[in-house]
Amino acid sequence: MPDASPTKWHLAHTSWFFETFVLAGAPGERPPRPDYAHVFNSYYEGVGPRIARDRRGVLSRPSHDEVRAYRREIDDRVVAALDEGRLSPERLTLVELGLNHEEQHQELVLTDIKHGLHANPLRPSYRAAEPGAREDTASIAALTWAHFDEHIAWIGSARGFSFDNERPRHRVLLTGFQLATRLVTAGEYLAFMADGGYRRPELWLSDGWATVRACDWRAPLYWDQPDHGDGGWHIYTLRGARPVDPREPVCHLSHYEADAYARWAGARLPTEFEWEVAAAHRASDGALLESDALHPRPAPDRAAPGPAQMFGDCWEWTQSAYGPYPGFCPEEGTVGEYNGKFMSGQVVLRGGSCATPARHIRATYRNFFPPAARWQFSGVRLARDAR
Amino acid sequence: MPDASPTKWHLAHTSWFFETFVLAGAPGERPPRPDYAHVFNSYYEGVGPRIARDRRGVLSRPSHDEVRAYRREIDDRVVAALDEGRLSPERLTLVELGLNHEEQHQELVLTDIKHGLHANPLRPSYRAAEPGAREDTASIAALTWAHFDEHIAWIGSARGFSFDNERPRHRVLLTGFQLATRLVTAGEYLAFMADGGYRRPELWLSDGWATVRACDWRAPLYWDQPDHGDGGWHIYTLRGARPVDPREPVCHLSHYEADAYARWAGARLPTEFEWEVAAAHRASDGALLESDALHPRPAPDRAAPGPAQMFGDCWEWTQSAYGPYPGFCPEEGTVGEYNGKFMSGQVVLRGGSCATPARHIRATYRNFFPPAARWQFSGVRLARDAR
Amino acid sequence: MPDASPTKWHLAHTSWFFETFVLAGAPGERPPRPDYAHVFNSYYEGVGPRIARDRRGVLSRPSHDEVRAYRREIDDRVVAALDEGRLSPERLTLVELGLNHEEQHQELVLTDIKHGLHANPLRPSYRAAEPGAREDTASIAALTWAHFDEHIAWIGSARGFSFDNERPRHRVLLTGFQLATRLVTAGEYLAFMADGGYRRPELWLSDGWATVRACDWRAPLYWDQPDHGDGGWHIYTLRGARPVDPREPVCHLSHYEADAYARWAGARLPTEFEWEVAAAHRASDGALLESDALHPRPAPDRAAPGPAQMFGDCWEWTQSAYGPYPGFCPEEGTVGEYNGKFMSGQVVLRGGSCATPARHIRATYRNFFPPAARWQFSGVRLARDAR
Amino acid sequence: MPDASPTKWHLAHTSWFFETFVLAGAPGERPPRPDYAHVFNSYYEGVGPRIARDRRGVLSRPSHDEVRAYRREIDDRVVAALDEGRLSPERLTLVELGLNHEEQHQELVLTDIKHGLHANPLRPSYRAAEPGAREDTASIAALTWAHFDEHIAWIGSARGFSFDNERPRHRVLLTGFQLATRLVTAGEYLAFMADGGYRRPELWLSDGWATVRACDWRAPLYWDQPDHGDGGWHIYTLRGARPVDPREPVCHLSHYEADAYARWAGARLPTEFEWEVAAAHRASDGALLESDALHPRPAPDRAAPGPAQMFGDCWEWTQSAYGPYPGFCPEEGTVGEYNGKFMSGQVVLRGGSCATPARHIRATYRNFFPPAARWQFSGVRLARDAR
Repeated sequence: MPDASPTKWHLAHTSWFFETFVLAGAPGERPPRPDYAHVFNSYYEGVGPRIARDRRGVLSRPSHDEVRAYRREIDDRVVAALDEGRLSPERLTLVELGLNHEEQHQELVLTDIKHGLHANPLRPSYRAAEPGAREDTASIAALTWAHFDEHIAWIGSARGFSFDNERPRHRVLLTGFQLATRLVTAGEYLAFMADGGYRRPELWLSDGWATVRACDWRAPLYWDQPDHGDGGWHIYTLRGARPVDPREPVCHLSHYEADAYARWAGARLPTEFEWEVAAAHRASDGALLESDALHPRPAPDRAAPGPAQMFGDCWEWTQSAYGPYPGFCPEEGTVGEYNGKFMSGQVVLRGGSCATPARHIRATYRNFFPPAARWQFSGVRLARDAR
Repeated sequence: MPDASPTKWHLAHTSWFFETFVLAGAPGERPPRPDYAHVFNSYYEGVGPRIARDRRGVLSRPSHDEVRAYRREIDDRVVAALDEGRLSPERLTLVELGLNHEEQHQELVLTDIKHGLHANPLRPSYRAAEPGAREDTASIAALTWAHFDEHIAWIGSARGFSFDNERPRHRVLLTGFQLATRLVTAGEYLAFMADGGYRRPELWLSDGWATVRACDWRAPLYWDQPDHGDGGWHIYTLRGARPVDPREPVCHLSHYEADAYARWAGARLPTEFEWEVAAAHRASDGALLESDALHPRPAPDRAAPGPAQMFGDCWEWTQSAYGPYPGFCPEEGTVGEYNGKFMSGQVVLRGGSCATPARHIRATYRNFFPPAARWQFSGVRLARDAR
Repeated sequence: MPDASPTKWHLAHTSWFFETFVLAGAPGERPPRPDYAHVFNSYYEGVGPRIARDRRGVLSRPSHDEVRAYRREIDDRVVAALDEGRLSPERLTLVELGLNHEEQHQELVLTDIKHGLHANPLRPSYRAAEPGAREDTASIAALTWAHFDEHIAWIGSARGFSFDNERPRHRVLLTGFQLATRLVTAGEYLAFMADGGYRRPELWLSDGWATVRACDWRAPLYWDQPDHGDGGWHIYTLRGARPVDPREPVCHLSHYEADAYARWAGARLPTEFEWEVAAAHRASDGALLESDALHPRPAPDRAAPGPAQMFGDCWEWTQSAYGPYPGFCPEEGTVGEYNGKFMSGQVVLRGGSCATPARHIRATYRNFFPPAARWQFSGVRLARDAR
Repeated sequence: MPDASPTKWHLAHTSWFFETFVLAGAPGERPPRPDYAHVFNSYYEGVGPRIARDRRGVLSRPSHDEVRAYRREIDDRVVAALDEGRLSPERLTLVELGLNHEEQHQELVLTDIKHGLHANPLRPSYRAAEPGAREDTASIAALTWAHFDEHIAWIGSARGFSFDNERPRHRVLLTGFQLATRLVTAGEYLAFMADGGYRRPELWLSDGWATVRACDWRAPLYWDQPDHGDGGWHIYTLRGARPVDPREPVCHLSHYEADAYARWAGARLPTEFEWEVAAAHRASDGALLESDALHPRPAPDRAAPGPAQMFGDCWEWTQSAYGPYPGFCPEEGTVGEYNGKFMSGQVVLRGGSCATPARHIRATYRNFFPPAARWQFSGVRLARDAR
C-alpha cells in the first residue's frame, strides 16, 4: 500500500523532525545522523531529497535497534537543550509542533499496522480478542437530529496550540441545518448495500463511481464474506476478524462511499463549519486512543441531548474540500510545508478516531485525506438542510 | 489527448441530447437513430452504456455527412414539435438546457481542434494569421487593485436561465479583499519563469509540484522555444505560431500554475464568491466568441474604473473547489447528472473566454475543470486580503 | 488500439518510404514534402523524430485528398526516375523493397480497418455479406498428419526477392516430426473452450495466463455471444457479424492461445523450420488477398495428399522466437532497421493470410508479432514429435 | 523492486517446497503449516492462491524467528523420513529437485539483498571491504578467439541431475563460429559508453532502445558518478562502493545492453549451443559462491588455451530465446510448472556467477531472465561467425 509506512520508519521520522527543526543549528548542537535526513524526511522539499513513500518498505537498515538508539539520542538532546534553556522561542514553538506531529504518527502507526497485517494472508491480530461475550442483543438509540438556525458563526482556533490550517479564527454565515446525533451504523450501511448501493451510479459522484468500478468495491475496507454458510459479513479489526456488529459505526469508508450513502439516505454530508459549530462547546472525549478500544464503539442505547460520538470512534467525512481560511498564513520556513501545500484535491474530516491521542484532538481540528482513502478510521455522520 | 473529442462527435452529441431528452417519448415522436445513443452519449449513466471518451477518435462511421444529415433531422423535428405545440413544459425547459449545452460544446469544439492541430507535427493553423502589423510598442496599464470591504453578499442566480449548480441564490459572508483590475500578462508570467518558477517547489501545491515533475512542464501549454537564435518564446494560436506578446494575458495554465504564480507574486487566487461580487454589476461583454478574436486580447493601455477583462479573453481560475451551494438540488431525472456528480476534485473557473458564446456567459456562471487541465483558455487574475 | 493506424496514414507512409529511400538525394530530385517525414516515418530512428503510433489517429491534416495528391506526386516521380534511368542499382533495389513494403501495408490497412470498425458500437461492415446460402451441412476432412523423418534441411531464401531476415540460406538439423494437414477449426477450438481452456492455468505459458487474466480473454478476438437465446458464438468479419462456422479455421488468436490449444490437444506448435520444410515445394496459392474472400475459408471436405491451407487463410503461429539466422547481415544503412532490430520478444508466423497479396508470400517468408497480438489473421496448425 | 523478495521469504519458501512436494501426503506426515502455502508459494498455480511477488515485502509475520523454527521443523521431518525410508522413489527425486531449488534461491538471496541495500540511501555494505590494496596496475590478457568448425554437436544433459529444460539430449548442426576467450571488461564497456553507446539507436534492438529511454539508462546497474572531482565511475558491490576497475568483467547488464555492446564491437552474442559446445569439456570451476569473492574477478593476466571465465564470475547472456528442446517433456504434476511455462519472452544465460553454488552449475545448465533484467550478476562474452 503506497500510503502506508513501516513502524520503524514512523519511529525514526518523528525523531528526525526534532533533529531537523529543533536541534539543527541550535547553539551547541551537531546533528548526530545527518545521513538520516534522506531516509526519514517525509515530504519537506525544502530540506532536500527523500526516499519515495512506496519504497520505505525496503529499508532493511538502519535496524530496529539502531532506530531505537537514535530516538533515545534525540530525546536526550532535546531534553538537555530544554533543561539548559538553550532553545530560542522559535525553537520552543517547534518543540510543541514536533510533539503534535508525533501524535499524528501515533495514529498512523496503528492504521498502517492494521493495513499490513490485513494484507498478510495469515491475518495475524495486533491484539488478542476482547474476552467476554458481546452484548449483541442490546439496541441503540434511534437516529435523531440536532437543529441549528441560520447564524454567523466563529470558526477556527483562537487560543492554545493549533495548526496553521485552523487559523485565523473568522466568521462564516451558516444557513440553517440539522446534524445527526450519532454516527451511521454498520446495520444502516448494510441496508444501503442490500439496496444495490454499490451498483447504482446515480448515487455516486462521478469520480467515486469510476473508483468503485476500477477497484471493484462492494463493501467497506476490511469487510469480507467468508464462506460460513450464513453468508454474513465479517470485519477485520486490530483484535482479529469477527462478524460485523450492526450497532457499531460503519468505518473505513472513502469519502465517495460516505457521500453515496448520504445521498441514498436522503441526506448529505455536513460541511466542516456545520460540524465545528455543533462540536464547539462539547468535551473532546470519547473512544480515543487512550480508551484502548482500538475500534469504534457502538452508539449508546439511550439518546443524549445533542450530538453524541463527536470525538473519537471515527473521523467524520465532511463535504468540504480542504482549503485555506480567509487570511491563511503558513508557518514561516520549511515547516510551512506542513499543511498549506496539501490544500488541493483533499477532503476535510473532523472529530478524531479510536487511534487519535486524546490531547491531540479539538473542535477546530482539521484532518484531511484524498477522497478515495479508506485505511484511516473514517466514518460518516449525516446532515441535512433545515426544513 | 483523452479529454478532447473529434468535431464530428461534438456535432452529433449535441443533437443526440435533443433526441434523448427532448424528443424521446414525446407524443408522436420516434427517435430516428436509437443506435446512436451508445456512440454519442457523453456521460449519462442513466441512459445506458457509452463509448469511452478516449476512444471517440476511432469512430470512422457515421461519416461527417451522415452526422450532418442527423443534425438536420433532429433540428427539423424539434422545430416541428415546437411549432405544433407538442412539447410539455418540462420538455420546453429541456430545449433551453439543450441550447445551453450546445453552446458549451461550441467552445469545446474550438479548444479540441486547437489541441489536435497543435499535436500534429505539421502545425497547421485553424485560421490565417491576422493581417496587419501588431502594435507591439503600445504599453498596457499598470496592475491596480479594486477594494471590497467585508460584507454579506448575495451569490448565485435569481432569474433567467441558469444551471442547477448556480442555485439557490444565497448569502455569503465575505472578508475584505482586493481584486486585480486586469488579468496577469504573459510578460509578468515570463518574469515568474525567469525567476525559476517551474523549479522551486516552495511555490507549488504538492499535487502541482508532482505534476510539474511528471509532465516536465516548463511553460504554459502551447508555448515553445524554437531555435531562432534569440531564444524567445513562441505561442501556438488558432491563427498559427508567433512570438509571445508580453502584453497578452497568459493563458492555457493549469490551476497549479495559476496558484504558484499567485504565491510567487505575493498574492493569491480569488474565491469564486469574490469574483462574482466584483462582476455582479458589469456587462458581460469582452473578447468572447463573437469577437472572432480566437485568442485573448492584450489589456487596454489605460486603466478603467473597476476590474477590466472580467468576461471573455480567459477563464479565470479561482481558489474554490467546485461544490454544491447550500440547499443545492440537482435537476430531476437523468439530466440531473449534468453538474452535481462532478462536485469532487474539480476547481471553479469564472468569466468565459474568447471561445465562449456571448449569450452563454453571466456573472453567476460556474465553469469547472480538474486542476491539471490546460487545454481550455484558462488564465489568472490575482486577489489579496484587504490590508 | 495502439497497434493500428488510420488508412490515410498507411497511404502516406508507403509513399514516404519511396520519397525517403528511393528519391531523396537522387540526381535531379528534391523531396516534395520533407515536412511529412516527421508525420509518416514509422520507426526509422536513423531518419529523425517521428509521431508515436498511438497518436497517428489525431492527424486531421493533411487531409485524405492531400495524401492522395502526395501519392500521385511520388508515384509520378519514381516512374519518371525509372523511365529516365536516373536510379542507381542501390536505389533500384530499394524500389523493390518499397513495393514489398507497400504490400505489407496493404494487409495492415485491412486488419486495422477491421479493428476500427469492430470498436465502433454501430458495428459497420467493410463489405456487404456474401449473397447465397452457406453450405453449413458439408463436413470437412478429418485431421491427419504428414510425416517427416530426421534430416538436415536447407532453410532460407536462395534466389528471388527476399527480406534480409530470410537470409542466409543455411542448413538445420531437424528431428523427425509430424505436421497437421490442415488448420485447427473453430469447431475444434469451441471444444477447447467448452473444456475450460480459458480457465485452466496448467494449459498456459506463464505470460499467457497473466494476459488471459489481465485482459479477461474468453474467446478469440472478434467472437462474442449476443443474447440470441441459443447462446451460440458469433464472429465479426469484414462482411459483418454472423454465427461461427465450426468448419472455418479459428483465427485472430494470440500466440498464447495457439500454444495453449496445442497443449490441450496433446500436440505442440511447429517450429518455423518444420513449417518451411513442409511448405518448400508447394505452390503458394490459397485464400490470399486476390481471392477477395476477406476471411479464412473452411478446410476442403476431402483430404489432399500432404498439408493443405499452407498459404493464405491464416498466418500460422510457430513456436520459434524471431531471431537472426546464422550469418545474418542486415541491409546497409537506415533500411537496415527494417527487420533486425525487432529480433527480441517476437514470435514467427508463417504462410500468409486472406489479407496477404499473392505475390508477397513464399515458403521462406518470416512474419513476426508479439505473442499477445490478435488483430492479425492469425491461426494455428498443430505439430508433434515423430513417434 | 518487484522482482526481488525479502530474505525471510526465500528462507521459508525453500522449506515450503519440501513441505509441499516431498512431505505432503507422504505416509505418516501431516504438514505442520498448511497456512504457509498461501504466503510462501512462488508461482505454482496448481497448488492454489499465492501472494503477489511485489507484496512479499509487507509480510511482517511470521517473524524471522518463526521462519527459522519452521525451517528446522521441515528439515527434521525430511531427514527423519529419509532415515526411516518412508519416501517413495518419486519423492526421493523431488528431494533432489528441492535441493537444487534451494541452491537457486541461495543466489537470489544475495542478488536481492544487494538490490535492497543499494536502494537504501545510506548504502550499507553486506560485507566489509576486502583488506589489502588492489593490484590496479596489473594488466589482463588481450581478448583472443577460440575457433570452432561447422559440426553436429550433442546438446543437453545425458546423465546426473538436470532440470527438465536441459533434456532431451539431442543433436544440433552448428555453423562455424568463434568465441571470445574471456568476458568483456569494464574498461572495454567504458569505451562503448564514451563512444555514445547509450545514445545511438542504431546499436540497439527496438525494445532495448525503448527501455533505455524509458528508464534513462546511462551505465550498468550499480554504477554511478559521484561528484569526486575526477568524474570517474564508481560501482556498488556487496563489499561497498569503490571505483570501477577496468579489468573486472562488466556486470549487471541487461540482455539489451549486452546485445548493443556486441553490435558496437563488431561481434554478436553467442547462441546457447555455441556456448555449451565450448564449455562441454571444461571443469565447472571459477569464482563461484564458495570462493567468497562476492563479485566477478578480473580476467587472468595471461591467456590460457581455450576460453577462460566460463563458469562463475558472471552469467553470460546468449542470443537464444528460452524455448523447449526437441522432444521436451515437463516433469509430471505441479512441479512441471518449474520450467516449461516460462518458455516465452525470456533469454538464456549460461555459466553461473559469483553467487552460484559450485555444485549447482554445469555446462548444460540453462538459466533464463527477461531481456530487461539487470539485478542478476549478468555479463557478456562475444562471439562471431567463422571467417
